[in-house]
Amino acid sequence: MKKTRITPFEENVANWYSDIVQQSELISYAPVKGTMFFRPHGYEIWKNIQKAFNKEFEKKGVEEVYFPMVFPEKFLQMEKDHVEGFAPEVLTITRVGEKELNEPFVIRPTSEVLFGKYFQDTLNSYKQLPVKLNQWVSVMRWENNTRPFLRNSEFLWQEGHTVHATSKEAKKFSRDMIKVYEKIANKVLLLPVIKGEKTKSERFAGAKQTYTIETILKDGQALQSGTSHYLEQTFAKAFDVKVLSENNEMYYPYQTSWGVSTRLIGALILTHSDNNGLVLPSKIAPQQVAILTLFADKDPRVVETAKQISKQIGNTRKVIDESDKGIGYKSQEWEVKGIPIRIEIGPRDIEEGKVTIVVRNKQEKIKVNIEDVNKKYIADLLKKYDEELYASATRNRDEKLVEITSVEEIGQIVSNGKAAVAYWREDAKLEAEIKEKTGATIRCLIPSKEQDETINGSKSKKKAIFARAY
Amino acid sequence: MKKTRITPFEENVANWYSDIVQQSELISYAPVKGTMFFRPHGYEIWKNIQKAFNKEFEKKGVEEVYFPMVFPEKFLQMEKDHVEGFAPEVLTITRVGEKELNEPFVIRPTSEVLFGKYFQDTLNSYKQLPVKLNQWVSVMRWENNTRPFLRNSEFLWQEGHTVHATSKEAKKFSRDMIKVYEKIANKVLLLPVIKGEKTKSERFAGAKQTYTIETILKDGQALQSGTSHYLEQTFAKAFDVKVLSENNEMYYPYQTSWGVSTRLIGALILTHSDNNGLVLPSKIAPQQVAILTLFADKDPRVVETAKQISKQIGNTRKVIDESDKGIGYKSQEWEVKGIPIRIEIGPRDIEEGKVTIVVRNKQEKIKVNIEDVNKKYIADLLKKYDEELYASATRNRDEKLVEITSVEEIGQIVSNGKAAVAYWREDAKLEAEIKEKTGATIRCLIPSKEQDETINGSKSKKKAIFARAY
Repeated sequence: MKKTRITPFEENVANWYSDIVQQSELISYAPVKGTMFFRPHGYEIWKNIQKAFNKEFEKKGVEEVYFPMVFPEKFLQMEKDHVEGFAPEVLTITRVGEKELNEPFVIRPTSEVLFGKYFQDTLNSYKQLPVKLNQWVSVMRWENNTRPFLRNSEFLWQEGHTVHATSKEAKKFSRDMIKVYEKIANKVLLLPVIKGEKTKSERFAGAKQTYTIETILKDGQALQSGTSHYLEQTFAKAFDVKVLSENNEMYYPYQTSWGVSTRLIGALILTHSDNNGLVLPSKIAPQQVAILTLFADKDPRVVETAKQISKQIGNTRKVIDESDKGIGYKSQEWEVKGIPIRIEIGPRDIEEGKVTIVVRNKQEKIKVNIEDVNKKYIADLLKKYDEELYASATRNRDEKLVEITSVEEIGQIVSNGKAAVAYWREDAKLEAEIKEKTGATIRCLIPSKEQDETINGSKSKKKAIFARAY
Repeated sequence: MKKTRITPFEENVANWYSDIVQQSELISYAPVKGTMFFRPHGYEIWKNIQKAFNKEFEKKGVEEVYFPMVFPEKFLQMEKDHVEGFAPEVLTITRVGEKELNEPFVIRPTSEVLFGKYFQDTLNSYKQLPVKLNQWVSVMRWENNTRPFLRNSEFLWQEGHTVHATSKEAKKFSRDMIKVYEKIANKVLLLPVIKGEKTKSERFAGAKQTYTIETILKDGQALQSGTSHYLEQTFAKAFDVKVLSENNEMYYPYQTSWGVSTRLIGALILTHSDNNGLVLPSKIAPQQVAILTLFADKDPRVVETAKQISKQIGNTRKVIDESDKGIGYKSQEWEVKGIPIRIEIGPRDIEEGKVTIVVRNKQEKIKVNIEDVNKKYIADLLKKYDEELYASATRNRDEKLVEITSVEEIGQIVSNGKAAVAYWREDAKLEAEIKEKTGATIRCLIPSKEQDETINGSKSKKKAIFARAY
């Protein structure tokens, strides 16, 4: 595949985005609409994201499982809201080879119903609770308008499912998990997300409460980046999951479910990347440092120095690119892939006892003494780099958020690529009207300590964020 | 779920097997025939197996990817042998919600065709070669007779796919990968597998050569436990994957593919387990040591000692079971789960400054001074335990292999739960007749240095293993 220039963001966001995902070799398009080939660079980022979450899940006592990718179509019908939410987009298997199945199966769009069945089969006493399970799998939900990572027919995600003895414990756990998501988004992905709760009309199909983290992107649109649901007894009742209480009575326990997906990679791109390609936070970059040789054929010290530096920077994730491509081409390859630090080594630098360092979010080249490029030097540089990415993303987010005083302002604001913020009292009818008129939805409600005048009537303690969303 | 006794192996192998997979909490049965819920204990074993293979794949320069779970049905037709081999068992998606699809998709039974498409899209020059990719995914192949791990409609596996500039390099790589499989089977899973090549009729649909590792199980049946295929240019031609050679000519490069699956867990069970449940090799056991407290409520020193021992054994994978269940019940729970070492701690032991140690493959209890139970002590015990498991499995395998001098002996031998070995010259017709008559197939051909009389005609340098297989 030939490298071509990336369409500037200012010219066309959609083309900029699609140029980046392909030229940085994150993915290439697969034959079925909305499915993708995750290439090594893209999949490695996902694996690093998985590791970051798994560490936190373990601390919460979550165990990993794998549940089937298919279940009988009739299972979906067992919970009224759930079937309404998902039935139109599930892929249905009706035959094996040439033989029609007596009973169609569907590919999981999410697995509440399978976990329901599993809990029914394996739980019988409060003594077994809490049960905290998670799986990393791919799911399918048919989409007509697809965009890599942002909206796929097949996407990768984790879905956590827990069962608790009491409502209080389950509620707390669903809130704890959204905090875990917020933490990883902030600290690892460097996404200054907004944490809040969904309005009733935006909740997960079957949930009593949905907590969310929302990313406000470069283009002012919002992206739901992780959700945690308090399911109460909805699925326990639908699947007749009953356990014995301390008082020897059978009752329905309380559940949660929560998930993040490869949409997070979309959030990363639309937060950090620029017109030269991908920009990756150091903690999830497949390589943190790319060491590039120049004119290695003319001076044997070039490769020697590259190896010496690789040694000096210890267990930093790194790669030495010794290929005989021109330095401009090589630099650009690692730049478009979003590698945080490039170290360029050529004969002239070596004469001076120096190497050239370029940090991905800056244009300037720094000359550094060879012996000074050690593990600590790189760690400090990466720390500063991460701080800059986060600060810049936060500035961008804050610039996009506009406080409003009337409902009428919303249309104008979202048309200008921004998001509107205002005190709000829940009103599903007006919410639907705004969506219809402006394309903006309430991304989340943020509880505040103070009560204040809303834009739609009496006072409220909750602020709403209105934005268009991917 | 109540624990019940395990059907003795000698009484009924199928029931013994199914009791073990359920009572050790590896899996429970899911609603679609041949699919399973991998429970935490079962999935953790699989994760440990993955880690062992990934380490070796990395050494070979293999990169990880994720490719879609569905592709258009017509893709399967692009390679003649491939479609014949897989079409009857693929699950076909014909609608989304209530809407019929114009073009049906299938769930991957394996992904040669998707990799074919991907290589076509991304390769254009020999300079990009070799490309070595692997994915860990689940695949579906419809089965009428299903057994957990041994034969599932959905199973988990890795599939590696490589492209090479020359036939020689590709052939070598396919042989290298079967050696990797043999190594992990022997050293990590403690399975004394037999490595060989498949006869033409038993090869992968589309391969020019298939290498295999076969496990001879406790019941004398064989289990194909890993295969590596030299695909030559079959799929390159089917998908028109062409690259530029050094001489500026377009040509079809050479491919391999190779896979191991959750069948390996079936091989483990039918090699190491006994009438008390699962027996796990130490390297893949989710916990290597279970520390069990007795009468902890009567003596605070019990829990203290458990913690002290946990500290003494360092980073050994371990669990402390402080539950107030009776010691018999607790012991049995960890025994049936196949944990290599149990350390039982009660007030009486502590009086003597000792704890009781039970190693899973032995019945005897050993009293050991508390201060002697350190990391090295456990490591030595695990090493000896692993050696014993491997030796016992090897003895069993060798007892099952019977040298024969005539084709007529095969039926009797496989009926007696054994496998037959003889020099053999390839003869697809006779091979089919033997299968028809005795149920035995040639599991693999083993090349030998010596040439000798065969059971079916002139001399040959290859031995065949005849066995019934799962």
